[in-house]
Amino acid sequence: MKVIEGGITAPKGFFANGIAAGIKKRKKDLALLVSAVPAQVAGAFTTNKVKAAPVLWDRRLVDSARPMAAIVVNSGNANACTGAQGLADAKEMASWTASLISDAAKPVLEHPYPVAPEQVLVCSTGVIGVPLPMDIVKKGISACASGLSSSFEAAVAAAEAICTTDTFRKEIAVEIEIAGSPVRIAGMAKGSGMIHPNMATMLSFITTDADVAAADLQGLLGTTIIDTYNMISVDGDTSTNDTVLTLANGCSGVSVRPGTDGWEAFSEAFLYVHAFLAKAIVRDGEGAGKFIEVTVEGAKTVEDARTLARSVVSSSLVKTAFFGADANWGRILCAMGYSGADFDPAGTELSFSSDKGSIIVVDKGEPVAFDEQLAKKILSEKEVTVHALLRDGTAEATAWGCDLSYEYVRINGDYRS
Amino acid sequence: MKVIEGGITAPKGFFANGIAAGIKKRKKDLALLVSAVPAQVAGAFTTNKVKAAPVLWDRRLVDSARPMAAIVVNSGNANACTGAQGLADAKEMASWTASLISDAAKPVLEHPYPVAPEQVLVCSTGVIGVPLPMDIVKKGISACASGLSSSFEAAVAAAEAICTTDTFRKEIAVEIEIAGSPVRIAGMAKGSGMIHPNMATMLSFITTDADVAAADLQGLLGTTIIDTYNMISVDGDTSTNDTVLTLANGCSGVSVRPGTDGWEAFSEAFLYVHAFLAKAIVRDGEGAGKFIEVTVEGAKTVEDARTLARSVVSSSLVKTAFFGADANWGRILCAMGYSGADFDPAGTELSFSSDKGSIIVVDKGEPVAFDEQLAKKILSEKEVTVHALLRDGTAEATAWGCDLSYEYVRINGDYRS
Repeated sequence: MKVIEGGITAPKGFFANGIAAGIKKRKKDLALLVSAVPAQVAGAFTTNKVKAAPVLWDRRLVDSARPMAAIVVNSGNANACTGAQGLADAKEMASWTASLISDAAKPVLEHPYPVAPEQVLVCSTGVIGVPLPMDIVKKGISACASGLSSSFEAAVAAAEAICTTDTFRKEIAVEIEIAGSPVRIAGMAKGSGMIHPNMATMLSFITTDADVAAADLQGLLGTTIIDTYNMISVDGDTSTNDTVLTLANGCSGVSVRPGTDGWEAFSEAFLYVHAFLAKAIVRDGEGAGKFIEVTVEGAKTVEDARTLARSVVSSSLVKTAFFGADANWGRILCAMGYSGADFDPAGTELSFSSDKGSIIVVDKGEPVAFDEQLAKKILSEKEVTVHALLRDGTAEATAWGCDLSYEYVRINGDYRS
Repeated sequence: MKVIEGGITAPKGFFANGIAAGIKKRKKDLALLVSAVPAQVAGAFTTNKVKAAPVLWDRRLVDSARPMAAIVVNSGNANACTGAQGLADAKEMASWTASLISDAAKPVLEHPYPVAPEQVLVCSTGVIGVPLPMDIVKKGISACASGLSSSFEAAVAAAEAICTTDTFRKEIAVEIEIAGSPVRIAGMAKGSGMIHPNMATMLSFITTDADVAAADLQGLLGTTIIDTYNMISVDGDTSTNDTVLTLANGCSGVSVRPGTDGWEAFSEAFLYVHAFLAKAIVRDGEGAGKFIEVTVEGAKTVEDARTLARSVVSSSLVKTAFFGADANWGRILCAMGYSGADFDPAGTELSFSSDKGSIIVVDKGEPVAFDEQLAKKILSEKEVTVHALLRDGTAEATAWGCDLSYEYVRINGDYRS
């Protein structure tokens, strides 16, 4: 597997664009992703009981397992808590996009095909409780469709248009070889930090030109999110709009099926792309100054390992300690203790590491004397790893998080308007 | 029921004291509570897998259901993650106290009685991973025992000595009449905000001169903590030392049994005392500028109501919004949505209220236009109530929390030493 320069359009047969439609004041706020041929789809959605209208729309489409033609995304408005009007607006975004792909986008598609509204996925992110300005949205979709391209620039524009408080765009493209042929997987995402003015969302879109059956893709996505998006924490709040969508259009001509030679390589690259985006989201967490990786080894079960790692990156006390570059092992042990996971504290070793070195602070559940100066140096780095070594078994897991800073309080304490 | 002036010694037959033993630099750090006669005991302890030595000691004593003579508490050192030495030190604190009550404290007790180490409960709070300075602790216990008194001043001294980063002492005393005779319940507590230098603890001690059987007391405490300590959140972290202890010495001569006339009055007063202390802990949460009460009504089950209310007061996003006096109903609805509780968002009404008025911001799950100026005024008060009215049933619950401020980050981001 090699990482290549490129974005969401790096796999064959994908076109994208991103523009400033006017939903936000000045920034790009509308993105379109279109596949040259109907693509197999897999999706994962927020578990929040309060689901935004586009989530309800997409869920139905993904469940239908019908091949998809496009994804339309707006930022600046989440279309959440908008009732029946919101559902109608989400459907209207899909219908409008479908008609454009069937008509206006024809010059882009080599072999235009009729697109039904039920083949267009919709995502929204931004302020909640405010109806979408549908005139602006529809004009924006039209303008966006007329500029669809498979260029890197088009991918960049799309990756920028889905952002809200993100401070950098998140994109990745990789290439693998299966039976001598190149297969590409690419993705773009936006951050999960809940944001001013109301709340934000984690959105992640992955494209591949592999030929994968929808059921296989959904199965793979299901296991992949467990070790990626479900292992990151910015502030513990799950939004009304969180969505991960994957499209596989088969344009590489390479078929990938479980049990065949290529499946393992494909799965690995697929995991890499999702993990890269998940970590990028954490790196760009609101007010985050530090990237924290927590690895738990020697746990009884992988579920225990995941629960322990997640509990540590989610603790407000651990996060503020990292903000202060404080080797506060007590808070880490404490967060493991209340996680609900089964482990033996008396068998626990804890260490911190970064580019400046590595230091053991707890052994067999009790503190060991350590060089405070060195600890401070290690923890003052931008990327820090916490390593918890248990003696309960052989399972392991990794979680990623960020520190809790004054800046987080400032961003989120600000008034909405 | 009437609230009376007084502290932990207000009920008959309780003696207390608090002194500066030298565990902390200058402040009071050692408290003693002694009962004139062996008292029935009930206790509740942290569910953290990492339990401090005194928690392990106390748990055994409470399980034995043997009548207790005293509680000794030190602040400044949690005696947690201290291994076998920690367990030996906790026991030594109990033994030392037991011998003093049998000897030195004789002048205080009208009818001195022999006290076994297994009749002395021990609590510690403060820095973790550091062995107790046992010479200082023992000298302190001796000094403390020699000044035991049933005066209000002695109760105040004890309430001060158990504090760590608390900015005010927490105490309450109430009196009820059962069959014409006065019965008193009193308590003192210390805050739950996790603290510099390492982590802190929620400690709560309740005394009553009612004659209650240990099993009845334990049953009552079990239901009481569900609606009090389990419904407060400062930062979501559960400490290694959290402890609630209740002593009933029967010195009022009034027997209280379930099913009798006095039980309901007693239970109500008991709940009032615990709820008062739980709320005081939240009011004094680290860096807290606002006290937030969240009431959920019309839930399907009381468990759903509790889960929903707790999820709202625990959300970092909701807490920062309150810090900013922001009527951010979206974050509240979102926190209810990911709580895991069963409810219908489309049937939800949300309102904010304080001394400045009341305002409905969401009806049937959708935003309603409201006066932003008035909302800002309401939310700028020190005490704010969020009221969620569901249409799923008749169950209700209340949770209490505080805002998340720059000050919280400052206190907890500071270096340990």
